[in-house]
Amino acid sequence: MSNPGKGRVLLAVNAFQPQRWQELIGNERDVTVEREAGVDPSITYAVVWKQKPNLLVGLPNLKVIFSVGAGVDHIMEDATIPTDIPVVRVVAEDLTRHMVEYVVWRVLDHHRQGRQYREQQRLRAWHDIDQRNAGDVSVGIMGFGHLGRAAASALMALGFHINGWSRSAREMDGVNTYAGEEGLTPFLNATDILVVLLPLTKATTGVIDYKLLKELRRRNALGGSVLINAGRGRLQKEADILRALDDGTLKEASLDVFEIEPLPKTSPLWNHPKVFVTPHAAATSDPRHLVPVMLEQMAAYERGEELENLIDREAGY
Amino acid sequence: MSNPGKGRVLLAVNAFQPQRWQELIGNERDVTVEREAGVDPSITYAVVWKQKPNLLVGLPNLKVIFSVGAGVDHIMEDATIPTDIPVVRVVAEDLTRHMVEYVVWRVLDHHRQGRQYREQQRLRAWHDIDQRNAGDVSVGIMGFGHLGRAAASALMALGFHINGWSRSAREMDGVNTYAGEEGLTPFLNATDILVVLLPLTKATTGVIDYKLLKELRRRNALGGSVLINAGRGRLQKEADILRALDDGTLKEASLDVFEIEPLPKTSPLWNHPKVFVTPHAAATSDPRHLVPVMLEQMAAYERGEELENLIDREAGY
Repeated sequence: MSNPGKGRVLLAVNAFQPQRWQELIGNERDVTVEREAGVDPSITYAVVWKQKPNLLVGLPNLKVIFSVGAGVDHIMEDATIPTDIPVVRVVAEDLTRHMVEYVVWRVLDHHRQGRQYREQQRLRAWHDIDQRNAGDVSVGIMGFGHLGRAAASALMALGFHINGWSRSAREMDGVNTYAGEEGLTPFLNATDILVVLLPLTKATTGVIDYKLLKELRRRNALGGSVLINAGRGRLQKEADILRALDDGTLKEASLDVFEIEPLPKTSPLWNHPKVFVTPHAAATSDPRHLVPVMLEQMAAYERGEELENLIDREAGY
Repeated sequence: MSNPGKGRVLLAVNAFQPQRWQELIGNERDVTVEREAGVDPSITYAVVWKQKPNLLVGLPNLKVIFSVGAGVDHIMEDATIPTDIPVVRVVAEDLTRHMVEYVVWRVLDHHRQGRQYREQQRLRAWHDIDQRNAGDVSVGIMGFGHLGRAAASALMALGFHINGWSRSAREMDGVNTYAGEEGLTPFLNATDILVVLLPLTKATTGVIDYKLLKELRRRNALGGSVLINAGRGRLQKEADILRALDDGTLKEASLDVFEIEPLPKTSPLWNHPKVFVTPHAAATSDPRHLVPVMLEQMAAYERGEELENLIDREAGY
């Protein structure tokens, strides 16, 4: 059954469950899941996440690329994607909620001494650890866009003090905001728990290094500084994180992303007692939420409306 | 140095760090920490938590008892306390914040599959667990007073569905509230994660038993029901909790309180893989917050003002 007047969709969401996506898009539009090399004039839209290189070459009628998930580095790093085709970032509210949950969960686990209490339980030790007030703990959110601000709101409601850093200035009520290169050191110096939600760009690759971690506030109510990375793995230098954990520069870390994913079995992060590892699972995109948003965007485009949430390919996000 | 015109304080806060309390109260008033048996006419106020029986006998000039901490069972169960003396519950805002933190932390750890991810980390397994939306998870708060309502607000902000149960009806916007005996089964049947914040009274002793746990909703987005007890240990029957965990009636539990505290080394809860144990540390009272509140209440009493936050000794809370 074909859907006349409705552009055909090329679906290439490699890391998710493609059959769910196919089913949901297929209810309204024709879908191509695999394509041969060569020219295919039938495709109007591409829906991608971690697509293979060259996938979008040879599509003379491709009008819009929809990128699912918060990060768009898989678009930026694929030099074969035609630069004249608009790329729409599709983010549904459930991804934001999941990310906020992850950040609040990890901040509370560090703040409430989860690791120490689990260790005490193992030893059958009944010992109350001195309890800090959230108001004495400063959470610094690096990357202060939609996700960072949503996390800030949730943490403020629990009483934490919040610092926000972004490339260009972004104010928010109740938050100490810092911007650009010159804002980075003051931001870090005032931060006990660093939450990384940066996009991966040329400028941010490897930014979480030993020098940066050394700038965090260590003499604090927590008894040390903490790193939480829910952004992208290549923002961090894992050798530097290990060094910082081992020499006391960092007290603990929660890492959801890694330089190489899946994290190699040989990585010392897996069994490091101060590190909590999750498999890039902080916030996944549920097609039940994303597909309706995307189908509506395609319909709006076909009615002649402007595309929204376009990616700035110059800036890299 | 004595403080004329200011009533002397008998201090008996056994489980905290009494020297901090003594110092802070002593800045303004005379303090007695230990007292001999017999009659002592010098005492005007008693500040107590887990006091020994008979401590408040033989104080002919005792005017007000200040009970610190959220629970008042240590007052109710001490038959030697004169019934004609008003008892003020002293709760500072930091205790509420700490309790809200604990509840949100534990709910998120169960909701986000903390136990499963820690186990996967141990096995170096990179495997994404299907992620539920908070809106599909129902948290039932049993005991819907000040603490319960504060926890409900924080959880609602994260998108959880909230049910509240209390002895007598208490409404709250956005919450499905249930009351009394007849409300209990419908409340439990609609609850995936049960958070217990009840006071310990004759009526509530042992209420968390196998029969109650069996009423929780097990066929849910979480894949089982969860118990979080941050109220009092004697609300729960630990043998029943163990049975429920072992036969699948309960998926997991976070317990901060126990029938006997400290939890005996021999308890099977310590090394049960599905149980997270903390040493009655969900929300401790910080004298730096409580003492100023209490000193102000004493001064107000001496100015002839009405006492606030009086305990209803008939109701038991």
